[in-house]
Formats: sequence, structure tokens, C-alpha cells
Amino acid sequence: MVTAAVMGSGAWGTATAKVLADAGNSVTLWARRPEIAEEINDTHRNSGYLADVDLPKTIHATADPAEALAGACTVVLGVPAQSLRTNLGQWKGLIGDDVTLVSLAKGIELDTLMRMSQVITQVTGVDAARVAVVTGPNLAHEIADEQPAATVVACSDSGRAVALQRALATGYLRPYTNADVVGAEIGGACKNVIALACGMAVGVGLGENTVAAIITRGLAEIMRLGIALGAKPATLAGLAGVGDLVATCTSMKSRNRTFGERLGRGGTMESALQAAGGHVAEGVTSCQSVLALAASYDVEMPLTDAVNRVCHKGLSVDEAVVLLLGRSTKPE
Amino acid sequence: MVTAAVMGSGAWGTATAKVLADAGNSVTLWARRPEIAEEINDTHRNSGYLADVDLPKTIHATADPAEALAGACTVVLGVPAQSLRTNLGQWKGLIGDDVTLVSLAKGIELDTLMRMSQVITQVTGVDAARVAVVTGPNLAHEIADEQPAATVVACSDSGRAVALQRALATGYLRPYTNADVVGAEIGGACKNVIALACGMAVGVGLGENTVAAIITRGLAEIMRLGIALGAKPATLAGLAGVGDLVATCTSMKSRNRTFGERLGRGGTMESALQAAGGHVAEGVTSCQSVLALAASYDVEMPLTDAVNRVCHKGLSVDEAVVLLLGRSTKPE
Repeated sequence: MVTAAVMGSGAWGTATAKVLADAGNSVTLWARRPEIAEEINDTHRNSGYLADVDLPKTIHATADPAEALAGACTVVLGVPAQSLRTNLGQWKGLIGDDVTLVSLAKGIELDTLMRMSQVITQVTGVDAARVAVVTGPNLAHEIADEQPAATVVACSDSGRAVALQRALATGYLRPYTNADVVGAEIGGACKNVIALACGMAVGVGLGENTVAAIITRGLAEIMRLGIALGAKPATLAGLAGVGDLVATCTSMKSRNRTFGERLGRGGTMESALQAAGGHVAEGVTSCQSVLALAASYDVEMPLTDAVNRVCHKGLSVDEAVVLLLGRSTKPE
Repeated sequence: MVTAAVMGSGAWGTATAKVLADAGNSVTLWARRPEIAEEINDTHRNSGYLADVDLPKTIHATADPAEALAGACTVVLGVPAQSLRTNLGQWKGLIGDDVTLVSLAKGIELDTLMRMSQVITQVTGVDAARVAVVTGPNLAHEIADEQPAATVVACSDSGRAVALQRALATGYLRPYTNADVVGAEIGGACKNVIALACGMAVGVGLGENTVAAIITRGLAEIMRLGIALGAKPATLAGLAGVGDLVATCTSMKSRNRTFGERLGRGGTMESALQAAGGHVAEGVTSCQSVLALAASYDVEMPLTDAVNRVCHKGLSVDEAVVLLLGRSTKPE
């Protein structure tokens, strides 16, 4: 049993808090907005993010980061990728020695092109061995509904990996340990961009063969980037790569795929944003940072490039689909 | 331009004949049943397999194998995996010298545990360099509808691979060459079994995280078998592996997934067979031969084993799902 602080009460932070509590750990959930903390404490619901899910009564919520972090030996960081640096900067004095810092955020920081674990070690000064990544095909609402799922716990320190694996193991979630933090992060950072591409293809009326081809070519470019950065191919062929990519690209409930579909049906970025309640899909941001990271390692990512051009350079989806599918024949 | 005989007028054989004709080749399509050949010649339709698809008028159909094979320099074998040996035995005297033999069948022969290309070289005595495999995420009705798709043309002879690539290239189908025949065949032979497993999970009510985890674990066991047989990992991470697996496992139109879903919803093998119009899903047969092949190479395939036990040993789907998802925690 561990004492855990989950920092961030979005869908995935809340679902992770539920997993940790269901596994018998002591869990404090930090919410930026006090009214969310109050709702969780009073009704054991987080209606804005996980409607209809009864949270364990043992989860204590607070809007005070100091209260959440006090005594925690496992700190789960569930804030968005582009906010992590700012938040961590405010929290670092409150985090105890020897704490395991767990990243849930999937993305590459825009200005620095850093992975989330790099942001964590830079901001807090902790050793990289104290940073873990949890990632995999884990649609939050399904985990919260206790649908069986598997996830990856990546940490270079095998002792911490196993401790976190145990802390997250429940009847419905099966965590697998992996020492390859880079591979785990690259899979998660890139998949939303490919899901946008799949959505665009579906939106313009293309079928399942096309989606499967985009997923496969997406995996190939994710693998190229990962290998250039030192990831193991097996990680990207596993739950953190193929698994997460397939779940995100094929789910009708995936925000990124849905966003891409709206663009594919002829919607503008503005109208797609509006339809998504003002929430920009993660891939719209990460296509920029992933592409810049790839360029700095001289890795070509044609799908990511096409998505970036649609989202930020005014390319039409129809033109992008021609780019995505190409016309010339070549060896695989 | 090549002169091609397509032997077999099922959905995929007919769609391949259409691709070859659309690409400007001379195509004769052999149908076992004369009434199908007549319908194709008279109405340019194959209503039993590809309803509503207008076939190119240049396709000539016949029920006479000698007529189909006369003068063909490319012979496309579109008969079921377990029928290939018998059919080829009847045709081998009719096949010209230096012809390229192209396998569309996906499976492992039950008695011999041979891949289709091995059956072809054994029965006809041709050199392995004359045998090619076409495989990938290619749902036949989508190809026939001219939805953009990609496919793999695998042949150890690069000259034949490129010639076949050119013969199959159309505005809607993009073929990629690959020298790894073993990898191309193993991906195709194994994916239907994993699609049955995905269907079973969906049938008992499990969600997209579970399906993604099954696809990922299925890919891992396909890779283990492929590598043991000499396949390249990159082939199985490509269109012939991941691509075909994802299309088959996530499509609502996939016969194997649908068959598995019926079993998952509590149907018996008999009732699932009846609902499928008496057509047994390919995975029901291939789980046996794939598992036997894996055993002979000392490769463990737990998902394939679980599917085999459901289909042939009376294991309930509920018990199989416990086997599929497991409970103990371990490294990925």
C-alpha cells in the first residue's frame, strides 16, 4: 500500500485515482477548481469528466496542492502536457525526497521539444530513476467502468516500476513493467496525431482499409522517431505503441479521431473547436512539437507533417489525403 | 500489361480481377460454378460475393480452368487455403513455364502445417522465386468500391515483385514490394484467429481497451511465430502484419470478428455457423494449424490456444476471456 497524490482531476487523473484507491492505496486527488474537489468529497462523483461513475469513498479531494502532496510517496502528474512545467514549478518545494514521480501526460513540450519525463527531471532536479510513465490503451471512461485493460509502467529503476505496478494492479487493470521510458513516452506523444489523420480519412468517406493503412504507416513513423531517440522497437510494438495507437485511432470515443472527422467532413478548425466545446484535440498541438523533434533528429514523419499542415498551414483535408495515401509505388 | 488468370471467384478473387483489369491487364477469371462465370460475362456482376459492384467489361469469366490458364503469365490463386492443394493438383499441367504464381489464400494447411507458398512449390515443382504473395489490410468489398488501400506484394525475386506491383497499381490500390514471403504469409494466416478473440471479448461486453490489448498481445505472438520461422519483424510491423490485423480485428464487417461476437454473446458453434449462413470463419480452422505449427517450433501462442479451446475443445468464452486477460502481473 502506498500513499499517493494524484495531481489533476481530468478524466484520466480521476480514473487513475480510482484505480489506486481500488487497489487499496491511500489516495488524495488534487483538483485545480475547488468546486470539483467539493463535488468529489461530497458526492463521490466528478460529473464534468466521468459522469455516472461512482468513485471510491476513500478518495479525498482537495484544491490545495500542499495538502495533496503532504506525505505522498507516489505523486501522479495528471495535468496537460503543456501545463506540466508551470504546475511542477509551483509544486516542487512540496514534493518529498525519494518520492516516485509518475507522468500521465502524453505530449512533447512545445518550446523545448522535451518529453514529459525530461521536463520533470529538469524542473524538480530529481534523478531520472525516480520518474515513471504510465501509458497504454487506456480510454479513461472504460477504466473507470472497470472494463478489463492492460497498461505499461515504465521506469528505469526496476524496483520503483514493480512497486508502481503493484500499486496499480486491480481486477480490471493489469500493469506490465518496462524499463524503456523513451519508448513509452514517444508512443503516447505521437498517437493523437495519427488519430487525427485517421479521423480526417473517415470524415472524407474513406474506409477501414485506409484507416488500417494509416495506422500502419503511422506506426512506422513513430518507430523511426522512437528508435532515433533510443527507444526499443519492442516497446512500440507493444501496449504503449501499437496498443495505444489502435485504441485511439479506432475508437469512436477518441477526441482526436472525432476532431479529425469533423475536419474531414469539411469543417474549419474553428467549427471543429466549437463542436468540441472549445477543447482543442491534443494532436493539434502535439503535431507541431513532434514534427519539430523529428526534424531535429532528421527523421521524416510524412503523416505528422500532413496533419500539421492541415491544422496550422491551411492545407485542405482533401489535399492532405492525397499526401497521406500518395500515388507512386515503392518498396514497403 | 500482363495476361492474368485469377483462379477463384469469391469476393477477394473477384476484387483482385477487377484491380488487374482496372490497371489495364488482360484478365480471365475462373469460377468453379458455371453460373457465376455466366453471370459475370452477361451482367458484369458477381452478385453472390460482391453485390452492386460493376466489374470491368474486359474481365472474361470461365468455368474451364484450361481456358483460364491458357497464355496466362500471371496466375493468381484465389481458392481457400485448405482447397489449394487439390485445385493446384488438377491445374498444374495447364500452367505455363516461367509463370508467376500468386497466392491470395491466407492460412496454414491443416495436415502438413505448410504455408501456402510451400504448398504451391511442392505441388507444382516450381522454384520458390516464382511464387508471390499478395496480402495486407484489404477488405474485398472496399477494394471493389475503389476505396484507397495499400497492399504488400511479397516475392523473393525482386523482378517478379516489381512486375506484379505494376500490374496491381491503380488509382485506389498502392502495392508495396517486400522480399519477405514468410512474414507476409504468417501475418495473414494468424490474424483471423486474433479477430475471433477480439469478437469474443466484444461479445461478452468488453470495451475498446480490451480489444486494443488483445490486438497487441496477438501481434506479439504472431511476431514470435514469424521470427521463429525466419520472418522479418519489420514485415509483421507493416501492412501484412499490423495493418491486416487491425483491419480484421476492428472491422464490424469482418467475418471472423462477427463469428467471435456471436460466440461471446452466448451462441454455440452450431448457432454461430448457422447465423453465418453455414460459412465457417477462417480462424476456426486456422487456429488448429497455426497452433500446431507454433508447437512444432516451440513457440507459445496463448491467445490462439484459447481460441482453439473454445472452437474445438468445449471451453466456454467466459473461461477463455479469463485466460486471455490473465490476472497475474508481469513484465511486458
